[in-house]
Amino acid sequence: MTEDLTSLVRQINESARFNRWCGFEVLSCAPGAVELAMPWRDEAGQYAGFLHAGVVAGLIDTACGFAAATLAGPRLLAAHFSVNCLRPALGERFVARARVVKPGKQQMFTACELYALHQGTEKLVATGETLLTVLSGGDKD
Amino acid sequence: MTEDLTSLVRQINESARFNRWCGFEVLSCAPGAVELAMPWRDEAGQYAGFLHAGVVAGLIDTACGFAAATLAGPRLLAAHFSVNCLRPALGERFVARARVVKPGKQQMFTACELYALHQGTEKLVATGETLLTVLSGGDKD
Amino acid sequence: MTEDLTSLVRQINESARFNRWCGFEVLSCAPGAVELAMPWRDEAGQYAGFLHAGVVAGLIDTACGFAAATLAGPRLLAAHFSVNCLRPALGERFVARARVVKPGKQQMFTACELYALHQGTEKLVATGETLLTVLSGGDKD
Amino acid sequence: MTEDLTSLVRQINESARFNRWCGFEVLSCAPGAVELAMPWRDEAGQYAGFLHAGVVAGLIDTACGFAAATLAGPRLLAAHFSVNCLRPALGERFVARARVVKPGKQQMFTACELYALHQGTEKLVATGETLLTVLSGGDKD
Repeated sequence: MTEDLTSLVRQINESARFNRWCGFEVLSCAPGAVELAMPWRDEAGQYAGFLHAGVVAGLIDTACGFAAATLAGPRLLAAHFSVNCLRPALGERFVARARVVKPGKQQMFTACELYALHQGTEKLVATGETLLTVLSGGDKD
Repeated sequence: MTEDLTSLVRQINESARFNRWCGFEVLSCAPGAVELAMPWRDEAGQYAGFLHAGVVAGLIDTACGFAAATLAGPRLLAAHFSVNCLRPALGERFVARARVVKPGKQQMFTACELYALHQGTEKLVATGETLLTVLSGGDKD
Repeated sequence: MTEDLTSLVRQINESARFNRWCGFEVLSCAPGAVELAMPWRDEAGQYAGFLHAGVVAGLIDTACGFAAATLAGPRLLAAHFSVNCLRPALGERFVARARVVKPGKQQMFTACELYALHQGTEKLVATGETLLTVLSGGDKD
Repeated sequence: MTEDLTSLVRQINESARFNRWCGFEVLSCAPGAVELAMPWRDEAGQYAGFLHAGVVAGLIDTACGFAAATLAGPRLLAAHFSVNCLRPALGERFVARARVVKPGKQQMFTACELYALHQGTEKLVATGETLLTVLSGGDKD
């Protein structure tokens, strides 16, 4: 079942152009938990050479959405997300670890930690959370 | 002076690889307010063909940071940002309008609206806010 | 119709013990917008004599919920709210002005400004936002 | 040293009128972590008889501030806080467990879980986070 989950999530990941451009890679999936990685690429940097806040948010929001999808399926939309920038996102590789904090019929609460791997050490560089709406059809005009 | 501001902000914008890759364009700058635009590009899409949440966040966080920089200069770091996803970000062009809500010596509170231009109409697709720290040196290890 | 709205919202306000204890007063209601006031009381203060963050949040969250209720009725639950503390909340009286940013069938996005009246001048002391879920039954176990 | 911390934090807690009115009780303190409890009281309820969102936020923001104070001392101001309302806050007693996620010279990132004790079982009812500014003097006009 975990294999099925992983292949479902990898399929969603592959279908998103931005995910492919960034090089997002689904490392592991379990019910309510996903690990997503991305290698550094120069075009994802901000002015000082750290990972751009948009890509930081993209990793966190994507990992949170995937964690929710392992429990609720793909009919989900992010309603709100937030990011805490704890340290400059400097590294050769980034790993986002997301989990469902509280599942629900109408909404899913998720949270995520983002780690940077830099010169052999892993550092927590950001935390974030996403609140997703389980679509019942008709909303989001 | 507004011209100087605009050229300072455009210079920061040009120095960031992700901003160039996205095609971020500084439309206008005034003290405490910035307008930032981006044309659609396929590689910035999520699985359903809307603008990816990471790029939505990137536009909002960048416009907020630029608005803060017009008052506080470039020694700023985003500490926290959040995004409300009001509608699917569908369009040929996106415009983020950011403003400083409250300037301060240690921190700047900013807010932003993101509009999508789609088939001749402009729609509010997201709102967001960024809290920036004015660097005094030494923090952010 | 605005009168009916106001009396509906006042009725909800009166039914909440904390609102009565705080002295929350519904000043005005329109579709999608509510003004809520509170006089200073010593027991609502934090250690330095400003309005406690919990009461600041209570005013903002309540005003946002009331603004949403003017459009969606009372079957609403706050899912997420956030507050920016712009200035110390010092005053003899506080007024929260909330509005619906985006209504929806499943959720309502709202935002609010909180003003303090101190020695004859009104100052913006906090901003906040609340994301409310429109209950369809069954969730929120 | 933990005893000194606890008595410092209890002293701050006692100096705040709202904390005393709510009955906030500092259960335990360690460097970077605080446990804060509150018994139910009728005047803290919202319209349906659950703990009011303002009191939920008050518990979370206070516990977060205390956790930060164990590392940075009392010269702190909350800049931003947010709350996820996972379940109705129903119980005879509430316990907030807060921790510092990332300390810094200019700011402290904190997070908190709020549990309700109801008929012998403890349930997670809310999560939240507070970003605090370490005062260097002069700001927050």
